[in-house]
Amino acid sequence: MIYFDSDYMEGAHPEVMHRLMKTNLEHTVGYGEDPYSAHARQLIREACQAPEALVQFLIGGTQTNATVIDALLLRHQGVLAAETAHINVHESGAVEHSGHKVLTLPSHGGKVAPDEVELYITTFYSDDTYPHMVAPGMLYITQPTELGSIYSLAELESLSDICHRHHIPLYLDGARLGYGLMAEGADFTLADIARLCDVFYIGGTKVGALFGEAVVAPHPERLPYFFELVKQHGALLAKGRLQGIQFETLFTDSLYQRIARHAVEQALRIRDAFVARGIRVAFPSPTNQQFFVLPNTLMDRMRQEVSFENWGPRGADETTVRFVTSWATTPEDVEHLIDLI
Amino acid sequence: MIYFDSDYMEGAHPEVMHRLMKTNLEHTVGYGEDPYSAHARQLIREACQAPEALVQFLIGGTQTNATVIDALLLRHQGVLAAETAHINVHESGAVEHSGHKVLTLPSHGGKVAPDEVELYITTFYSDDTYPHMVAPGMLYITQPTELGSIYSLAELESLSDICHRHHIPLYLDGARLGYGLMAEGADFTLADIARLCDVFYIGGTKVGALFGEAVVAPHPERLPYFFELVKQHGALLAKGRLQGIQFETLFTDSLYQRIARHAVEQALRIRDAFVARGIRVAFPSPTNQQFFVLPNTLMDRMRQEVSFENWGPRGADETTVRFVTSWATTPEDVEHLIDLI
Amino acid sequence: MIYFDSDYMEGAHPEVMHRLMKTNLEHTVGYGEDPYSAHARQLIREACQAPEALVQFLIGGTQTNATVIDALLLRHQGVLAAETAHINVHESGAVEHSGHKVLTLPSHGGKVAPDEVELYITTFYSDDTYPHMVAPGMLYITQPTELGSIYSLAELESLSDICHRHHIPLYLDGARLGYGLMAEGADFTLADIARLCDVFYIGGTKVGALFGEAVVAPHPERLPYFFELVKQHGALLAKGRLQGIQFETLFTDSLYQRIARHAVEQALRIRDAFVARGIRVAFPSPTNQQFFVLPNTLMDRMRQEVSFENWGPRGADETTVRFVTSWATTPEDVEHLIDLI
Amino acid sequence: MIYFDSDYMEGAHPEVMHRLMKTNLEHTVGYGEDPYSAHARQLIREACQAPEALVQFLIGGTQTNATVIDALLLRHQGVLAAETAHINVHESGAVEHSGHKVLTLPSHGGKVAPDEVELYITTFYSDDTYPHMVAPGMLYITQPTELGSIYSLAELESLSDICHRHHIPLYLDGARLGYGLMAEGADFTLADIARLCDVFYIGGTKVGALFGEAVVAPHPERLPYFFELVKQHGALLAKGRLQGIQFETLFTDSLYQRIARHAVEQALRIRDAFVARGIRVAFPSPTNQQFFVLPNTLMDRMRQEVSFENWGPRGADETTVRFVTSWATTPEDVEHLIDLI
Repeated sequence: MIYFDSDYMEGAHPEVMHRLMKTNLEHTVGYGEDPYSAHARQLIREACQAPEALVQFLIGGTQTNATVIDALLLRHQGVLAAETAHINVHESGAVEHSGHKVLTLPSHGGKVAPDEVELYITTFYSDDTYPHMVAPGMLYITQPTELGSIYSLAELESLSDICHRHHIPLYLDGARLGYGLMAEGADFTLADIARLCDVFYIGGTKVGALFGEAVVAPHPERLPYFFELVKQHGALLAKGRLQGIQFETLFTDSLYQRIARHAVEQALRIRDAFVARGIRVAFPSPTNQQFFVLPNTLMDRMRQEVSFENWGPRGADETTVRFVTSWATTPEDVEHLIDLI
Repeated sequence: MIYFDSDYMEGAHPEVMHRLMKTNLEHTVGYGEDPYSAHARQLIREACQAPEALVQFLIGGTQTNATVIDALLLRHQGVLAAETAHINVHESGAVEHSGHKVLTLPSHGGKVAPDEVELYITTFYSDDTYPHMVAPGMLYITQPTELGSIYSLAELESLSDICHRHHIPLYLDGARLGYGLMAEGADFTLADIARLCDVFYIGGTKVGALFGEAVVAPHPERLPYFFELVKQHGALLAKGRLQGIQFETLFTDSLYQRIARHAVEQALRIRDAFVARGIRVAFPSPTNQQFFVLPNTLMDRMRQEVSFENWGPRGADETTVRFVTSWATTPEDVEHLIDLI
Repeated sequence: MIYFDSDYMEGAHPEVMHRLMKTNLEHTVGYGEDPYSAHARQLIREACQAPEALVQFLIGGTQTNATVIDALLLRHQGVLAAETAHINVHESGAVEHSGHKVLTLPSHGGKVAPDEVELYITTFYSDDTYPHMVAPGMLYITQPTELGSIYSLAELESLSDICHRHHIPLYLDGARLGYGLMAEGADFTLADIARLCDVFYIGGTKVGALFGEAVVAPHPERLPYFFELVKQHGALLAKGRLQGIQFETLFTDSLYQRIARHAVEQALRIRDAFVARGIRVAFPSPTNQQFFVLPNTLMDRMRQEVSFENWGPRGADETTVRFVTSWATTPEDVEHLIDLI
Repeated sequence: MIYFDSDYMEGAHPEVMHRLMKTNLEHTVGYGEDPYSAHARQLIREACQAPEALVQFLIGGTQTNATVIDALLLRHQGVLAAETAHINVHESGAVEHSGHKVLTLPSHGGKVAPDEVELYITTFYSDDTYPHMVAPGMLYITQPTELGSIYSLAELESLSDICHRHHIPLYLDGARLGYGLMAEGADFTLADIARLCDVFYIGGTKVGALFGEAVVAPHPERLPYFFELVKQHGALLAKGRLQGIQFETLFTDSLYQRIARHAVEQALRIRDAFVARGIRVAFPSPTNQQFFVLPNTLMDRMRQEVSFENWGPRGADETTVRFVTSWATTPEDVEHLIDLI
């Protein structure tokens, strides 16, 4: 059996595990105040060219989104997001649990359109009854999106400009940020992200760590009392050094980028091979997630040897499916997969 | 330097790390539906003699308390707890974040008194204005308590009886449960806990794991929709097998108990040596946390070579301090410590 | 100037005021435990043919919706509603404030379609990831809707049947329920509403009272601890008799229905006169709210003498507007209005 | 039967009712944007010598406390209050419902002690683990307190000074503020309250109105987006003019003060007569609430003709009871009461 279900089906990249083993018996203080966490924060600041940035480690994506959104919004505000956004669909109402509404915008392959963001905000305030409505208090985007697409630098600049003209923060969910940075055609850097976003997170769970997400606020004053909220949300790890050690490893010798580049390369090999064999792409994606429309006969045959996800329900004749690569995907696995079609 | 600050200052017990390494490259499904988690749940059910129990893994203590309490209470209810309870003092308002009040009872060395629990409940309902007040909807206890003390089996039976006569669940926070089970004079077993409590958790973070807490509901119908709430609270780990592998290891060959017994033995050696040298015990504790009143001169001298916590502010002449042992505490460390006094 | 802005622009129906004056100096207990409230509850039970019903008075609509929804939902659930629903658009996130998501369905003239309700629920549970999503825990409808339309008895029966087959409660927001009962072509009674809904409220604020909404739960066990939640939501009036006296008056000699019938008659006169003069109806409505598309020139001229609301922004040539009638609308006002076009 | 149960057992002061009747048929816009509300706000600003004050009308006390506290606190903060405070005891967890903890201080006859407030704050920040604890984010006091006592001007100045030195707002619950202003020995004015508090409310429900509380923020920037939060909390009245008309009446010709002075005078007559007859005062009160310790035999005899409240449970031989006066208390009622003892 070969596996393309998702990018969180194994443990951690071997280098990460190696470092966790090596440091296992050391004594350090808890809650992220240890030297490993300090060093990891410093490496991330450097990678982001954001020397003053607040960097706080959390554990998982839903938790990170819920905590950051709770920290950024005032009580009467909601968060703008694509209707396909993870926070709107797959987080069991974690945003609402903290009292905030998700204000949905149309999804364009997983992305929001800058002009629709601006139209929402201006229409909102032009309505006489707006104090009776939930105010758009921030914009949430994912990069890459849930459908594998990426925002271009120009789109990010446009969204950032709109947010800042309207005095709302821009928050970028980077659960798979590495794969975006290393995507085919990507024209933005971590420093661009840090320059354009008020808060973002660098996903570890899906890019080589056992777990862990690094929240970055290039201007810390825009995320006040965040540590307290992290604790309140139950998101503070006692042995915080575990995140420090992992991110230190990932941000040493560009391991984070190398992991992502490898996975994207394998994903594009799969895409190209599938397309060459006449299989239809469901949503174009330059990242480590690839979506195809498979004839059911082919799909059923492949399932004998390959594990992958249905994306939506099985159709009458064909079904949309997802293949995902990661650091653990070997060229041999890809070869094998391609041979099957 | 030798370390007695707390029981979460190192990584994981070497056997746990060994198993994480060994399984690192395997593919499994996420969110705790993997075979390791299934096996760990089974081992825990057996250890608890609770064959039908729901066992759900979470990550840390504050998160676990907030999620379980949110799951057990109706919206108009609060949670009864000692005023020294972790949920009342050191969780940044996580219980209140989900909309519930902590209803405090006097602390007796960290414990609640059964008669005071019952008095609270009966007094509450005898007040005409009780619908204007927060109803006591569950009882929270810690075992061992934040002050190292333990409830006897008779006390647990009494609390369980009171709760059930008044139709409210009993929840036991077992962040350090192992140290309670192996405490000097402990007369209760995991099976007793499972028999007497509606929900409890077996703490991993402080007893040999990197992180992880196992919530156990011997009668699953008393904790409905818990998985959904775990997700909503951001407490669901993508790579859920990490908890499964750790708890499988801890509950194989009684590693959990062996870790705890070792730590308690070292703690009692410290206590006995300190007492023999005339140092006053601050709160009697049969577990891995020991509290002493140290003359400041001695304390300052010890600080040159030993790391430990002040418990409360420095006094004029003497200060209450805490020494904690764990699997990582060596007999040599203890020897060294004793030599210093 | 004549006024058709809304149905809450005056005080109360004179008979209501008369009763408030007459009883003003009497002493009664607070919080709705007075004899007037008891009698009003009894009259409402009789009108609803629901002899066991819990009847609880609240103050306003947003508050009532937020409190009832909070009472009916479990923590992981959301409320299904039309995207145009008041709770989704005009309540400043009150539902989310209590931690719940509004799950939107397409609006058909303000109404939800029964088949789309059922499809939502069945699709939800057919998705493997549903525990990561917000579960549909109840259905919210308005009768009449925000656009003046009404559900037929057959539609209500269908919605009730779907809800009960899927074990979720049906809640009906009756802020303007009187106008629905007295609507042109209405084929349902209060007793039908009580038979088909798990909870509903009879709106007072917009149908002759100073303020006040009567929540009715024909089977009280489906709305447990509601009084406590009313208090927790700040919705309990100290001088609860004020609601009792008002609803007693409204439900004596069918004043509630008479008020509504009068308003609907005046609204339909307006509609018929407008249509006869070639003015286009924006959304068909058999109730006291009428929506037209007015040429801007006519609209501007009318504004000299008539007060009414734009419904949405002013268009280039024409604008959608709303005219609302109430107990305070006189035939002379309507005459005057018709003369203007 | 004569009534001394509470100050909300009748309707409104006749002058208030008269004005409500007189304006009943007028058309005005809703939600407090009408001229009556505007005028009432202006009168209150003048009475408070706070020309820039935000004045927002709400409906009841619990609602007002919950909304103001939610508006003033950041998410990680709690509210300091006496353990006897209404928000801590009698509001069904409304503060916690919005996610905040009540941090209790000892009660001294219902009051907090300035030095204990300061000690709490300074101790909090001197604890290394304070980010794991709920930060004191505001101080809540009642004037007069739940036990009828009042803070002196010096005490208010001291509390205000402490709050402002520590950068937390001071909020005063004035559910019965009139009775405080007119209390025996009161040395403060409304202008003092406005000068010393960041937010306070002037209670209407218990001082002559049908319902209604006027929230005053002398510096509106300290209570941003309050209108939106009022709506979110379900506290916005559609027919907002009802509060405007009532407060306009109460603040015309000092009706508010006259009502309060009358009630206090009657209360003190009762107190003096009781004391003269050897009955023990339970808590000294210079306001309209009087607390006595009555022998049970006397209490039982009085109950034949007088309605009043037990304050706490019936004792073996004697019981603490409360007598409350209001605008509706007649000198004849008081005469009659005094004759009975």
